[in-house]
Amino acid sequence: MNKRWSKEVRGLLQKKKRKESNRFIVEGRKNIEELLRSNLTIECLFYTEKLNDVIDRYADKKIEILQETTPESLKQNGHLQTNDSGLAVVQIPKFSLPTKKELGNVSLALDNVKDPGNLGTILRIADWYNIKNIFLSKECTDVFAPKVIASTMGAFSRINIHIVDLVDQLSNYKEEGIKLLGADMIGTNIHNYKDDSKSIVVMGSESHGISEDVENILNEKITIPRFGDAESLNVAIATAIICDNLVRN
Amino acid sequence: MNKRWSKEVRGLLQKKKRKESNRFIVEGRKNIEELLRSNLTIECLFYTEKLNDVIDRYADKKIEILQETTPESLKQNGHLQTNDSGLAVVQIPKFSLPTKKELGNVSLALDNVKDPGNLGTILRIADWYNIKNIFLSKECTDVFAPKVIASTMGAFSRINIHIVDLVDQLSNYKEEGIKLLGADMIGTNIHNYKDDSKSIVVMGSESHGISEDVENILNEKITIPRFGDAESLNVAIATAIICDNLVRN
Repeated sequence: MNKRWSKEVRGLLQKKKRKESNRFIVEGRKNIEELLRSNLTIECLFYTEKLNDVIDRYADKKIEILQETTPESLKQNGHLQTNDSGLAVVQIPKFSLPTKKELGNVSLALDNVKDPGNLGTILRIADWYNIKNIFLSKECTDVFAPKVIASTMGAFSRINIHIVDLVDQLSNYKEEGIKLLGADMIGTNIHNYKDDSKSIVVMGSESHGISEDVENILNEKITIPRFGDAESLNVAIATAIICDNLVRN
Repeated sequence: MNKRWSKEVRGLLQKKKRKESNRFIVEGRKNIEELLRSNLTIECLFYTEKLNDVIDRYADKKIEILQETTPESLKQNGHLQTNDSGLAVVQIPKFSLPTKKELGNVSLALDNVKDPGNLGTILRIADWYNIKNIFLSKECTDVFAPKVIASTMGAFSRINIHIVDLVDQLSNYKEEGIKLLGADMIGTNIHNYKDDSKSIVVMGSESHGISEDVENILNEKITIPRFGDAESLNVAIATAIICDNLVRN
């Protein structure tokens, strides 16, 4: 990796630079494979010989700069502690807001989710349950941070991510007849919840739950029944259980 | 914290020392509160003024050494990046193996789970679903490591943890008529699973799933139906979804 690219890539570890240049980095074998399979625009891809088989499989793919490099160079410039496969610089995609018709039966909205690992894991869960659209409040941790992307295990390449003013956007959908559900400690037991309306499930922040402004526009609160003594569940865990209950219906 | 205790506490950050002295550390307000509420034997508790209300509430509790200290001292000696509440040294409890009668309807067994965050989160999930017994293979990450304890959010104080030879112990339970279930990519759809037998659910390692020896003694494999494209779910996420499905029945 030459000096110019090294500087570029290291810059993209910072949110400010990602925003300015509208690009992010993707690291590691699994994520690079999923990236190559997607329609995202790859500006450059640095890879080690260990990734040769993947590079060969996607030989037709248009990539401006495709360069072999060493694991040391990937480690020095990226965010992973070890990386013996590859690192790509990718354009941040812009998704148009889905119409009511385009929305699936279940979508997710995250209100102020701060932990990168939680955010990445939630994208992975959405991908498992075929949830195509996720709405993120502007206060959520940056979804294009390397740590988030790494923990999505490729899901970043398949989910339409919308960073929005949550109250405005959800209000619009509500007016169109989309049901707004909010995960809370008290609400309708999800084991008994049955409703065929298209819905968006709001998950609140790790420390404060759903913010008041968003809470005020919800149609209904839903809750995961508790059988034991734990006070709460982690937000990614709660998202998974709720998705499993809503998507199966 | 005097020099002797400082050395003791720092030592307990290492697995070797925890094993030798049969003690572990508990840090942070929530975990200390749950610790005080439990029957675990607390050897010493160092606390800041911010924990005064909790200390007052448990004034009757027998604790050999109870000392006020500073957040700086807690940070220097413990594992948390910041800790303005407290740190305790606690005896590692020894739980006797439950008989068939003592086992709840659902128990968990973890085969080679390596990530401390995953292990702690799984204890928290078990606590939510009132699962009282968890069996850990000897290859699992040390459950008394500070990072695991921290992520249990107090659940460590309510769950009976058994570190065992998984094949031997599960075989014994199987002979007594306990059903051994294993989470796998192919198996009975947990959405349709109905069975009133007492069961132990085995969750495999993050990278290799259930080991062959354990797989060979399972009664049945169960699986979480996939609706989208993600290749897998994180082991803590999968545990939560399975518990939600089995415990509700």
